[in-house]
Amino acid sequence: MSFNWLETPAASLNAAALEAARERQGQLTKPPGSLGYLEEIAIRLAGMQDTQQPSLERVNITVFAADHGVAEEGVSAFPQAVTGHMIGNFASGGAAISVLARNLGASLEVVDVGSVADSAAIPGVIVQKAGNGSANFRRGPAMTESQLAAALQAGRDAVQRALGSGAQLFIGGEMGIANTTAATAVACALLGQAPQEIAGPGTGLAPEGVAHKARVIGESLTLHRQAMTSPLEVLRHVGGFEIAALAGAYIACAQAGLPVLVDGFIASTAALAALRLRPDIADWLFYGHASAEPGYVHLMQALQARPLVDLGLRLGEGSGAAVALPILRLAAALHGQMATFAEAGVAGKNGG
Amino acid sequence: MSFNWLETPAASLNAAALEAARERQGQLTKPPGSLGYLEEIAIRLAGMQDTQQPSLERVNITVFAADHGVAEEGVSAFPQAVTGHMIGNFASGGAAISVLARNLGASLEVVDVGSVADSAAIPGVIVQKAGNGSANFRRGPAMTESQLAAALQAGRDAVQRALGSGAQLFIGGEMGIANTTAATAVACALLGQAPQEIAGPGTGLAPEGVAHKARVIGESLTLHRQAMTSPLEVLRHVGGFEIAALAGAYIACAQAGLPVLVDGFIASTAALAALRLRPDIADWLFYGHASAEPGYVHLMQALQARPLVDLGLRLGEGSGAAVALPILRLAAALHGQMATFAEAGVAGKNGG
Repeated sequence: MSFNWLETPAASLNAAALEAARERQGQLTKPPGSLGYLEEIAIRLAGMQDTQQPSLERVNITVFAADHGVAEEGVSAFPQAVTGHMIGNFASGGAAISVLARNLGASLEVVDVGSVADSAAIPGVIVQKAGNGSANFRRGPAMTESQLAAALQAGRDAVQRALGSGAQLFIGGEMGIANTTAATAVACALLGQAPQEIAGPGTGLAPEGVAHKARVIGESLTLHRQAMTSPLEVLRHVGGFEIAALAGAYIACAQAGLPVLVDGFIASTAALAALRLRPDIADWLFYGHASAEPGYVHLMQALQARPLVDLGLRLGEGSGAAVALPILRLAAALHGQMATFAEAGVAGKNGG
Repeated sequence: MSFNWLETPAASLNAAALEAARERQGQLTKPPGSLGYLEEIAIRLAGMQDTQQPSLERVNITVFAADHGVAEEGVSAFPQAVTGHMIGNFASGGAAISVLARNLGASLEVVDVGSVADSAAIPGVIVQKAGNGSANFRRGPAMTESQLAAALQAGRDAVQRALGSGAQLFIGGEMGIANTTAATAVACALLGQAPQEIAGPGTGLAPEGVAHKARVIGESLTLHRQAMTSPLEVLRHVGGFEIAALAGAYIACAQAGLPVLVDGFIASTAALAALRLRPDIADWLFYGHASAEPGYVHLMQALQARPLVDLGLRLGEGSGAAVALPILRLAAALHGQMATFAEAGVAGKNGG
């Protein structure tokens, strides 16, 4: 396994389709600009898919699950066993993302990219482990170089499967007890910010738990500071397998010209890592749901991005992106299916 | 026609179903509260529908269209003829709300509650005119008492039709050149605020146009101040037929126990008028999309409400509510279809 594939540039949006879409938006039977952000989304989708009838009917959701050695530092409100339990719950259809995927007509895939659970026994789970949980990064690097390569590749492989099934949009989710700790450490390293400003409650820590988490992250960043000389080394030292898999998936999507809808805090951290590796992927990423984690605002600033919705979700799994998916679909439908002023015989603006 | 039906109280949410839903949310396989606002929505829907499997499959969207005499004061960026043209566009399927309704599997109804157009000639339009456009309220009351009663009744009738077809949610839209002027006047009168603080660009006025609009509204409020002694008199003096129809529809929905998803600025103004008439309807109203009109924030404060999304739409027609509809649907699906911890064999929070 190697990192060479990361060198392949991202695909380009079709400039002629973008221009035609901008023009079409001005001809649809509505005051100019009155569909707000939906117009911008539709124009981008038209450029991505090289069509004036963009469609996001076929959507693939892949949840990457992994465990984190740093969980032994007591940074999560839940025991590590929950990762394995939830892998089963995703596969058997009872988890939030399972329900969302079903109701959205999206296909859902669960990839165990490195839990400590014996997920091979769970029907419907793709087992592609980069390791049996990452190492505790408060004491050493979270993973080896070959583990990092394997995790990135697991993301890329999921995208290849999605492309094979004709997906028009990719959503990546994550599950892993203690993974807001890993994501926060990655975000701090990439943004150059202190953990006290970025660390948050994750799925349910009390304030003293957040302070402890920030201390653990701070000590870990100090331990690895000299070694974290690149985005890949950041992911390797303080990341997690599912975070690396998401970063790999986002890069693979952009290389293949497959639009991405990024989930909340952890997924956006993976997106930032991916963007630091390949800045040209930015055009392919939409952001679904704002996170209440304090670091999220900093991530969006660094990504120059804005999320579609903010409904107070803090679950992960890809659930925030899934909830926002209908907005992208409706933006595409409006663009492709509304009548133009000429078609409808409607008078335009009188300039007043 | 009379106003007597407005005296009927709103239905009550089922307290036992609300309590059961709160308990169920705590048992679903997710950290407590991690679905954020979606949990609150699901609990309300369970109480509204008296079930732990709430559903919003059957949705009725009714667009009320009307004209406004105050348009002759030059307060809109578009000529009055556009109202009639857009009625045709709604009915023939080319308008934004037509596309949204189709893609959402919602039924769409267009009611001409008082345009100056000859909409009887347009197939698929329900013509129930309270008048041929309202009067110019800068010079006199916008409508007579019987016209107001007719407009409110048109809203109520639409709800009766929706109930007859088994609707589980009602969305009201509006179309009417100059109707942000009427809505702003109503909002100012109900909120006791100055038009300079509430008036906005509507569908596309330049700053000098907004200033002119605020002046027209200010003069109109001065003219009618003494006469506007009740919410009904506010609607009658400075409202519009479609605004009154929406207010009537919201009250009829709450009386019948039919949940409502309110659209943007104009619809929220109608909701405030309805709420001032019958404060007990509040429980039945969800709010779909934030408006960029400066008055919207004041409306939400007065309504103690928050919108689901803010995507920069400023179109009306019910489009903002329609775009937000999938969020309500997904909240309902998550509540009814997720596994509980017991069902999934997932460990709960360890209290840390």
